[in-house]
Amino acid sequence: MKIRALVLALGLAFSSLASAAMAADPLPSWNDTSAKTSIVAFVERVTKDGSPDFVPIEQRIAVFDNDGTLWAEQPMYFQLAFALDRVKALSSSHPEWKDQEPFASLLKGDLKAALAGGERALLDIIMATHAGMTTEDFSQTVKDWITTAKHPKTGQLYTQMIYQPMLELLAYLRTNGFKTFIVSGGGIEFMRPWAEAVYGVPPEQVIGSSVVTSFEIREGTPVLLRQPKLNFVDDKEGKPVAINQHIGRRPIAAFGNSDGDLAMLQWTCLKREASFCLFVHHTDGEREWAYDRQSHVGQLSKGLDEAAVNGWTVVDMKSDWKVIFPQ
Amino acid sequence: MKIRALVLALGLAFSSLASAAMAADPLPSWNDTSAKTSIVAFVERVTKDGSPDFVPIEQRIAVFDNDGTLWAEQPMYFQLAFALDRVKALSSSHPEWKDQEPFASLLKGDLKAALAGGERALLDIIMATHAGMTTEDFSQTVKDWITTAKHPKTGQLYTQMIYQPMLELLAYLRTNGFKTFIVSGGGIEFMRPWAEAVYGVPPEQVIGSSVVTSFEIREGTPVLLRQPKLNFVDDKEGKPVAINQHIGRRPIAAFGNSDGDLAMLQWTCLKREASFCLFVHHTDGEREWAYDRQSHVGQLSKGLDEAAVNGWTVVDMKSDWKVIFPQ
Repeated sequence: MKIRALVLALGLAFSSLASAAMAADPLPSWNDTSAKTSIVAFVERVTKDGSPDFVPIEQRIAVFDNDGTLWAEQPMYFQLAFALDRVKALSSSHPEWKDQEPFASLLKGDLKAALAGGERALLDIIMATHAGMTTEDFSQTVKDWITTAKHPKTGQLYTQMIYQPMLELLAYLRTNGFKTFIVSGGGIEFMRPWAEAVYGVPPEQVIGSSVVTSFEIREGTPVLLRQPKLNFVDDKEGKPVAINQHIGRRPIAAFGNSDGDLAMLQWTCLKREASFCLFVHHTDGEREWAYDRQSHVGQLSKGLDEAAVNGWTVVDMKSDWKVIFPQ
Repeated sequence: MKIRALVLALGLAFSSLASAAMAADPLPSWNDTSAKTSIVAFVERVTKDGSPDFVPIEQRIAVFDNDGTLWAEQPMYFQLAFALDRVKALSSSHPEWKDQEPFASLLKGDLKAALAGGERALLDIIMATHAGMTTEDFSQTVKDWITTAKHPKTGQLYTQMIYQPMLELLAYLRTNGFKTFIVSGGGIEFMRPWAEAVYGVPPEQVIGSSVVTSFEIREGTPVLLRQPKLNFVDDKEGKPVAINQHIGRRPIAAFGNSDGDLAMLQWTCLKREASFCLFVHHTDGEREWAYDRQSHVGQLSKGLDEAAVNGWTVVDMKSDWKVIFPQ
């Protein structure tokens, strides 16, 4: 019992030191506008002992979309840029692609013609570049690309085009006992190789779209092979389904930027008192991109309407964020 | 920097106190036989700073089968007992079941005749009792059952028929920085409502078989509806697939008891130095049940052969465990 008491005392000392360290503004890249105020008020409401809305630590689950919420998504989803680079890299071992759409147009640099084939063309590109190898090989390919490929407009690494205010938000929530998950339409195995280093989110807290994999023992070594077959699309109504499947708890906070995230925010916030939902609204055409209701990438239309009706927070990137990307 | 140094010092003090507390035998229900020795040696090998096999804390993933590994599975899987009880409870609103197999035989108490229809019959029973409701309603039904239903032979709650030595093992691994996951052929949403209280494994670390769910907003309230359609069978080669999908890291320790766990142990241990694999072998017909190669429930045959070839630990329940169930 003596040891237990001492451990408890040390634990308390540790925790008040941590509080002291956090007394400095935990969200320095956020202007002192209503968006920031609403976040801080929510966190205090659910973490303060004795608060009527107190939420036990194990139930503090926060879910974040990735494309357009944690990092940029213009002029095209970054994973599509990865796929296009892979088509180029693989083309020498696929001579037949010269005469085969969508690859022929892609290799000529005509993205528009390549994608004219719609969802089918996109799926062909994804499968040709994301399947047919082991999970380990795919992971290595992603690592090689993510540490070298540059964004066509900014010339930055894609992992430098993450939102500094959202990094602070992730850290702030974790400091307050939240477990932070990524729930993205992007590929689960495209994000995992770098999400921990970049966002502090470990692989087991990354949820995304996936292809079917199959287990095999090759010359004594077990491998998982990525098959050219969709397993799950983690978008729209798929997001609450995947959250339930992976986490098994309803989140109390959800962060997105497009109509693809709407179902996730509804699942988190509708008819629930102690919950928080937020859309990042891309309003800054100078520092980033400005788009919403009419955009093909990251369309945000129904979401804006629902946010207004339900009182969800909408971040105006232009006025709410002091900086966009890490300096 | 002063605060950081103090925090570090406190952290060290905390950790050496924790070690002191653990100096007492962490596995008191295990006899001092080779099974126990192999576990302790592995944990020391991967956790000791400077050890050539040291594994960083975030990679210390341990996976456990449930039926026959963490709790008993005789004379039938406990989830099947749940399904049979549900058939009885639901029969008044299903008058057609009186003339419809497998329900007719079940309601007459003739399990053997009911299951004569093989996999199809079993699936009909599972779907009739596990689908057609919201995830929330299903969870409540499981909670009601698990806190009241009694095992036909021992008269104990099913959650009392868990293995005390395995509880100690779960705790021992967690004390040493492992994250413990359940990876079971059982239903993911059948285990989650009680796994945290019983095993200390939170919902997001429970992986299992599942039905398809669909998202819907009912009179303003979002729900997930359980559909009468299999989504994933988390057994045999499905286990490594599910581990990759949910965790995204290869475990370094795996615990099972049947050939259904073999692929999971292969994925964990084949061609890997710092890894540990263990089968629980049911050898104690007096205190529990004795079965292996010929059993229909929890058959362990290929697994025993592979364990011998690969030097995996095989627990002889009769001689390695002082007690089976918690007192």
